[in-house]
Amino acid sequence: MQEFDLIARIRQRAATRSDVLLGIGDDAALLQPPADMQLVVAMDTLNAGVHFPPDTAPADIGWKALAVNLSDLAAMGATPAWCVLSLSLPEADAGFVDGFLDGFLKLASQHDVALVGGDTTRGPLSVCVAVHGVVEPGMALRRDGARMGDDVWISGTLGDAAAALAQWKAGSAMTPQLRERLDRPTPRVALGRALRGIATSCIDVSDGLLADLGHVCKTSSVGADIDIDALPASSGLRAAFDADTRRILQASGGDDYELCFTAPPSMRDAIARLASEQTPLTRIGCIVAGNGVICDGFDAGRAGYQHFT
Amino acid sequence: MQEFDLIARIRQRAATRSDVLLGIGDDAALLQPPADMQLVVAMDTLNAGVHFPPDTAPADIGWKALAVNLSDLAAMGATPAWCVLSLSLPEADAGFVDGFLDGFLKLASQHDVALVGGDTTRGPLSVCVAVHGVVEPGMALRRDGARMGDDVWISGTLGDAAAALAQWKAGSAMTPQLRERLDRPTPRVALGRALRGIATSCIDVSDGLLADLGHVCKTSSVGADIDIDALPASSGLRAAFDADTRRILQASGGDDYELCFTAPPSMRDAIARLASEQTPLTRIGCIVAGNGVICDGFDAGRAGYQHFT
Repeated sequence: MQEFDLIARIRQRAATRSDVLLGIGDDAALLQPPADMQLVVAMDTLNAGVHFPPDTAPADIGWKALAVNLSDLAAMGATPAWCVLSLSLPEADAGFVDGFLDGFLKLASQHDVALVGGDTTRGPLSVCVAVHGVVEPGMALRRDGARMGDDVWISGTLGDAAAALAQWKAGSAMTPQLRERLDRPTPRVALGRALRGIATSCIDVSDGLLADLGHVCKTSSVGADIDIDALPASSGLRAAFDADTRRILQASGGDDYELCFTAPPSMRDAIARLASEQTPLTRIGCIVAGNGVICDGFDAGRAGYQHFT
Repeated sequence: MQEFDLIARIRQRAATRSDVLLGIGDDAALLQPPADMQLVVAMDTLNAGVHFPPDTAPADIGWKALAVNLSDLAAMGATPAWCVLSLSLPEADAGFVDGFLDGFLKLASQHDVALVGGDTTRGPLSVCVAVHGVVEPGMALRRDGARMGDDVWISGTLGDAAAALAQWKAGSAMTPQLRERLDRPTPRVALGRALRGIATSCIDVSDGLLADLGHVCKTSSVGADIDIDALPASSGLRAAFDADTRRILQASGGDDYELCFTAPPSMRDAIARLASEQTPLTRIGCIVAGNGVICDGFDAGRAGYQHFT
């Protein structure tokens, strides 16, 4: 098995779209962006042992590599369109690639994303994906739009992925329901789209709620006051951890890929409708004067996961 | 130094463009593609010890990481616009990042490419770049357009980068002129643009002339007959290697990032003008019936560098 064989293997399985003029197999992909739309581009890398436990199934690695990128598009309110993939492998392992593609392409298919190029190289196991989406001019959800008096909202539940990681680091068996959240996060693409015109700012929770909301505060020049007891928890998390540990995981744990957004109180009815139609949405606090996140009266500082600490 | 500090360091130095609506610092970049143009996207990864010797200067790694991507755009005849960068580092090393940016941003500036996003992660040293350019509809240079009777052309000289790598692998000192070609390849962006409407097919030489021309032959369903004595060599290569070794390096060595293209004989005058204005261009053979590359009468097979052999 050689590099070109791996690429052929990938090419054979990659679906296409009518706006892909030239996909895998040339020096670059050739794409036809829709008229009068803006282009949204995100890129994220997953390294073995850093972003996923080394024994993670290839299909889960594939799923997650695309999911974390789609989550960035979701946080912008963009519609996904195309992606490119760079896969570094210690050796040309067809079984790994097949499993990886099972997960990667299953999620791609759910969001009508075409894999249009990239490369395969020899190196320590690492996956880099760049994803491209489109959004109507002026409609992108940004980090800089939070305004005093806005509510702060979160989708789904928080802390499950970090809980699974904590179990793994402690050498314990991972609770299946928690591990599923770590291995197969759900990018909130439809929710992000639905929040155009409703949310004033949005971010996906990848580094932890407090850290990520801190980015919104800094970029928007505001503060946020969060009620830690309001943070939503799954039944699996409640069953596996005591209340104190659970609150830390919910507030500071990364890798949940839920959307944290702000919206004026006038939008509460619209948000309640969204929550009943799509994904549970919980109001967890409000935007205040200041320059950071206050959590139960304490300055939350920069309490999220950072890669180099 | 933490992840967010590294990102701030990069953001501070990254230039922007008027079509970048939102660059580094949100969940994704927001870009305004020009109306009525097609989008061209390429992605390439460099891993330490695989794509560059471990003692390569950070500035050279930065240069090369962007250069190999711009070379892909050059081979499509595209005008570069934006890029995203994923940098994996064993530790948050500000000195490395500063040096890396020196090389990366110098080349970006030469081609008016804005660095608009990406990520930094902990992991073995690895650089992944995705680059975006634009091209007029129908004008992209592809691999599938070579036609019987076309001339085969190559820009610049071949074999220098592979020669430096051969010296390094043999434990010899690298000839400075050769190492410069390995560390700081020149993406032939202006040449690629000038070849729109002239070349019938184009590819950049990254895996070796015979392998890369083989891709063109396969995609275009033609053969190519190459005269090995016609392959251009630099004075540095001639001085450092005997004729037999030199020919192997020129025919099979990768990493030169010259453009190999085909064009009908009616274009010879136009190509001569280009050569005198820009970059030396050498006619090295012609397109014939067949399905692969013939070199001095022998089937060249797949003689280029492949990552998993």
